[in-house]
Amino acid sequence: MKHLLSIADLTGADIHGLLELTDHMVEISQRTIPKVPALRGKNVVSLFFEDSTRTRTSFDAAAKRLSADTMNFAVSSSSVNKGESLRDTIETISAMGVDAFVIRHKSSGAPQMITRWTTACVVNAGDGWHQHPTQALLDCYTIRTNLNRRDSFEGLRIAIVGDIKHSRVARSDVQAFTALGAHVTIVAPPTLLPPSLDGWPVEISHELDSILPDLDVLYLLRVQRERMDDALLPSLREYSSMYGLTAARAARLPAHALVMHPGPMNRGVEIVVDPADLAGSVILDQVTNGVAVRMAVLFQLLGSGGDLKGDVS
Amino acid sequence: MKHLLSIADLTGADIHGLLELTDHMVEISQRTIPKVPALRGKNVVSLFFEDSTRTRTSFDAAAKRLSADTMNFAVSSSSVNKGESLRDTIETISAMGVDAFVIRHKSSGAPQMITRWTTACVVNAGDGWHQHPTQALLDCYTIRTNLNRRDSFEGLRIAIVGDIKHSRVARSDVQAFTALGAHVTIVAPPTLLPPSLDGWPVEISHELDSILPDLDVLYLLRVQRERMDDALLPSLREYSSMYGLTAARAARLPAHALVMHPGPMNRGVEIVVDPADLAGSVILDQVTNGVAVRMAVLFQLLGSGGDLKGDVS
Amino acid sequence: MKHLLSIADLTGADIHGLLELTDHMVEISQRTIPKVPALRGKNVVSLFFEDSTRTRTSFDAAAKRLSADTMNFAVSSSSVNKGESLRDTIETISAMGVDAFVIRHKSSGAPQMITRWTTACVVNAGDGWHQHPTQALLDCYTIRTNLNRRDSFEGLRIAIVGDIKHSRVARSDVQAFTALGAHVTIVAPPTLLPPSLDGWPVEISHELDSILPDLDVLYLLRVQRERMDDALLPSLREYSSMYGLTAARAARLPAHALVMHPGPMNRGVEIVVDPADLAGSVILDQVTNGVAVRMAVLFQLLGSGGDLKGDVS
Repeated sequence: MKHLLSIADLTGADIHGLLELTDHMVEISQRTIPKVPALRGKNVVSLFFEDSTRTRTSFDAAAKRLSADTMNFAVSSSSVNKGESLRDTIETISAMGVDAFVIRHKSSGAPQMITRWTTACVVNAGDGWHQHPTQALLDCYTIRTNLNRRDSFEGLRIAIVGDIKHSRVARSDVQAFTALGAHVTIVAPPTLLPPSLDGWPVEISHELDSILPDLDVLYLLRVQRERMDDALLPSLREYSSMYGLTAARAARLPAHALVMHPGPMNRGVEIVVDPADLAGSVILDQVTNGVAVRMAVLFQLLGSGGDLKGDVS
Repeated sequence: MKHLLSIADLTGADIHGLLELTDHMVEISQRTIPKVPALRGKNVVSLFFEDSTRTRTSFDAAAKRLSADTMNFAVSSSSVNKGESLRDTIETISAMGVDAFVIRHKSSGAPQMITRWTTACVVNAGDGWHQHPTQALLDCYTIRTNLNRRDSFEGLRIAIVGDIKHSRVARSDVQAFTALGAHVTIVAPPTLLPPSLDGWPVEISHELDSILPDLDVLYLLRVQRERMDDALLPSLREYSSMYGLTAARAARLPAHALVMHPGPMNRGVEIVVDPADLAGSVILDQVTNGVAVRMAVLFQLLGSGGDLKGDVS
Repeated sequence: MKHLLSIADLTGADIHGLLELTDHMVEISQRTIPKVPALRGKNVVSLFFEDSTRTRTSFDAAAKRLSADTMNFAVSSSSVNKGESLRDTIETISAMGVDAFVIRHKSSGAPQMITRWTTACVVNAGDGWHQHPTQALLDCYTIRTNLNRRDSFEGLRIAIVGDIKHSRVARSDVQAFTALGAHVTIVAPPTLLPPSLDGWPVEISHELDSILPDLDVLYLLRVQRERMDDALLPSLREYSSMYGLTAARAARLPAHALVMHPGPMNRGVEIVVDPADLAGSVILDQVTNGVAVRMAVLFQLLGSGGDLKGDVS
């Protein structure tokens, strides 16, 4: 594994291996000094062409727990503003000595393209509507540990609800969940579905209520307010009444079912009930697991052999 | 001590203990390699909802001298801009693994509120007009060392001059200086005093000149230019003529008296003379001591036992 | 050597010494763990009053490879915006404990002035049209290694092409290249030459084509698009037709000749051919060498004795 660009590049066994490695990273994260020298001297550069403090920080924390050095490029202050091409930017930063790039870009496929211009590893931290593979891995890890499904998701029923059309999270999660054997239903109004669902190994539903009692996982997507401007949504209130997680809907979920969300949440829209009041909410577990999963990804790409044993004291 | 929110939460003995600990931090800061491994693996997150490079950097330098990892959130680039609530922001960052939050916020009480949403320690780095406790501690430390008052401020006469009404520095300093036994006079035009001074253990003066010869410490506050827009100040020139530290006023101070300012200075307004020409100016000492005091606070909150002994070489 | 402000302060022997030291830094940079503890506990502060992610990052990477701590001040978020003077800003940051300032400023001479207000070392990372000494050193190092000229540039023929008038790179490079013995020709339209060239130890040419076959190094400067607004350039197209490096011009260079550029490149203006297609392009080598040269400068200013031997594992 040289890059992490898309869940589509991974087999179920690959995903399983990364989740096993994540177990080690969780153990490290729970130590008194949650830090190992595994990636000392490695240089991890995050290059975010779209704002995302949340994801950038999670990668940053992951890199630091492995003792890597980190550099953050906010594009607003970079030479990209002086008209430099993406290729020149990548080649230049790369020439300073980079071991891994963590890339977020509004264009689908940008991370893939960037692999041509650098010998560093590339991790896709979200590209357009295309992929967000570490999100899918942390979602898998969260389901795996909370539903005690170490070996397979066979038989699990997962619903992903919301703006499937514009969601890299949905695309990545569908691939990852089904690669591990889960049964996935996507739930959305017709305007928020992709034009074609050929090749999506999912069931489709336009309503949520009838399927709630059968779910093991209810995965809520963030509603982008700008979709209303595109006339794809009549109103947030109408969306909420059809697809929002209210207390009434939450009560219809099985007791063991998980509620998940990639954040940041629009409270009162896709999630009306306070997740703190839901026994099944694992939304903060997702955040915590995100750091461990990203440690596993960085270690898989940049680490060598048995060097998780040491400590930094 | 789990958080540092307000000087009002500390006894004189608590303050004394932190100043004693600061002595150790000053010694560390003067070593060839001014760094100890005390907080290795700890994650200190600064979350500044108001700009303050000066205070943020001071905390950052303090954390690094103790070998903590640091992460800075400028709110302008965070999910707060996507409409996420303060609570969700705190819970999310907290879930990534945070040991201490350093918070600056325009609303009085925000750091206190944040303690409900995280198990991390919270340090108030300035909230509204309310408190700025590390500023008060560094001011105490500066007086203590420069006037050789290790045990008590009993008998010291301190004047705090300027916009008392809107100043968290004034509120914190009054509490800290009087807790250590000093006699404090606040000097301001009536428009820049709080509506009520009940419970403030201070004397009040509307003019500066008569008290100068009796002072041990003259503490000048920064004048906020926007107060003129509020019609609380007729003009900066008039303020300066009444309360600004001119050469003439400086000459009336006792030879041993200290001149202090929390910075950044408005030269020509509250300070007309060049502080570099004043024997008693300890304004840069305040900055230097700020790093050591913040080391003491972070170590008090996050450290454990005798681990100030080691070194990082 | 206490500061690095200008190439004019260095003798040929000084430059030679720094390039020798850079050899060590290149060796360190090629290790599995490219990091030494030489500057552990040192605090390197970059203070950029002009945007330059590229240069700032290069210094940052250099400091980290030597285990220094780094702090970056973007001026947009600093107290300079609250009307604080440059002197107060420097004195304040300095009081927090700074070992070296890396300064970029739009005013020629600002780094020199800053040396009056701090006991820290000052490295000029570009001031106005005046100097950019680490750029000149990395350019020298790149020529030295690629043309195998360890001891002297005697007999080398170098052309620097473009906007000489407004270029700190040109001023620095002319001084450094000639100090090492090279013969330098500057090539520019008359509007982009300084009013006087008295004391410049260079030949001047208004056209490029005739001198190409005799060159060992062709150094292209970045064309600033804003020069057209100043009516100093008729159009980018005309500039390009006269001075741009086209495939035809590249073919007229000797086989061994190097093509250099300080970046970021204006493709299609000063460089029309894709540098990836030029055997002689060492533009990315310049970037790579930039980190090693800056390591050498920081170590020269802040290091002590034989501490390049250790490692950080």
